[in-house]
Amino acid sequence: MKIVLIGAGNVATHLGRKLVEVGEQVVQVFSRNLLKATELATALGARPIDNLYGLNARADLYIIAVHDDAIAEVVEKLGEFELEDKLVVHTSGATPAKVFDAAPELNRTGVFYPLQTFTKGRQLDFSEVPICISASQTDDLQVLEVLALKLSPHVYKVTDAQRAWLHLAAVFVNNFTNHLFEIGHSSLKKQQLPFEMLLPLIRETVAKLDSGPPKAMQTGPAVRHDWTTTERHITLLNGRGDLQEIYRVLTKHIKRTHADNWTH
Amino acid sequence: MKIVLIGAGNVATHLGRKLVEVGEQVVQVFSRNLLKATELATALGARPIDNLYGLNARADLYIIAVHDDAIAEVVEKLGEFELEDKLVVHTSGATPAKVFDAAPELNRTGVFYPLQTFTKGRQLDFSEVPICISASQTDDLQVLEVLALKLSPHVYKVTDAQRAWLHLAAVFVNNFTNHLFEIGHSSLKKQQLPFEMLLPLIRETVAKLDSGPPKAMQTGPAVRHDWTTTERHITLLNGRGDLQEIYRVLTKHIKRTHADNWTH
Repeated sequence: MKIVLIGAGNVATHLGRKLVEVGEQVVQVFSRNLLKATELATALGARPIDNLYGLNARADLYIIAVHDDAIAEVVEKLGEFELEDKLVVHTSGATPAKVFDAAPELNRTGVFYPLQTFTKGRQLDFSEVPICISASQTDDLQVLEVLALKLSPHVYKVTDAQRAWLHLAAVFVNNFTNHLFEIGHSSLKKQQLPFEMLLPLIRETVAKLDSGPPKAMQTGPAVRHDWTTTERHITLLNGRGDLQEIYRVLTKHIKRTHADNWTH
Repeated sequence: MKIVLIGAGNVATHLGRKLVEVGEQVVQVFSRNLLKATELATALGARPIDNLYGLNARADLYIIAVHDDAIAEVVEKLGEFELEDKLVVHTSGATPAKVFDAAPELNRTGVFYPLQTFTKGRQLDFSEVPICISASQTDDLQVLEVLALKLSPHVYKVTDAQRAWLHLAAVFVNNFTNHLFEIGHSSLKKQQLPFEMLLPLIRETVAKLDSGPPKAMQTGPAVRHDWTTTERHITLLNGRGDLQEIYRVLTKHIKRTHADNWTH
């Protein structure tokens, strides 16, 4: 397949590299930043452009991998080209398929959402990444499935609603979790203790998910109704009202979630 | 060293097994539940008791590994025995050393806190566990250090204040994180999607900590001020005010934490 990559950020970079690795042909890379377009295009053996009016209209697949805010604008632009019989997808978990309504000229649209956090400079085993696909036309769903399976065995056909919840869940388990790690990091730093002390605990927290669902793995003062300890923690956080708020909200929610099976 | 284990729960079990493995002698295991005392004692080649009046007063070290709520009561009881020249420690992260004030007869006290989440039935590499020690007498700090180093190379001498913050940080990175996993789990379940879809993301979230501190690894709508996406998420959570509250509080705090280095 001849593929045009629109975007040169983390998702475009990781995805583009993997596509080339499995034998697909990336013919063009667009970025408003020519330096970024050139850098990625060079790595992929493609041509860089920084203006969509230079778009190659004879590719098979157009992958929009830009910031969520910019997708609608790109879609609208693509409507100006003769892409009626071309497959156009975006890679966003948060953006509904109806973003393509901005260009009714596009007949074959879809979503190709890799459910992972991509970081510049980090190697990542793409074959571990779940890929969530959807398409406006049944035939295209199969096209995307075949392509996705070249990158990873974990391919899921999802509805818009499912993808929205997947993205929301990803915010909880990745963005919010990382922020809790940051709170742990800064708390220890103030006590002149190294963050490394928490790493075995963090790793075990995740490793335990192999033994059962997270609800069954819950431990700590909130789930065992140890209010002496929670009050001690709230007191320790005096002067840090923001952390007290997070502590109280999460403690309350753990208590509620486990209310039905609490026995002491 | 001859050791008496007071408690037969998860910490006592994991610690007891490791102590025996490295050649220490556990002579007695106490639990109010004779069945549990017997089970662990048998595994360790020790004698079980379910009444402290049967306590062996000729051991070298007494390890109190019971629920936080019960430590003070156990300490008070131990004051009734002739343990003036024996070393008595508890294993709790949340409990200050002043819990030993309940038994002024005890002259040699300390804390031996393994910073990990112990789960029944799960194998755990104790040599990865950070052990936080403190003692009322300098000589005993060395005794505890020598013992701890037999179990793990990660031994830290900590103050009461440091241990309190370590325990609080552990609640954030373990208890609260696991609860976020549970929210991800239940969100996907309602959409008939398997939790396994989130595991690669969760694993990468933790793996990224090797590349830099959590603050530098933060991604997501809150840190890039993508309020279109956060509003979409809040709307998706309509009818789940509890989750909206968690979402709002954590989003607000991420925004604040990153306010200083936000450029867009």
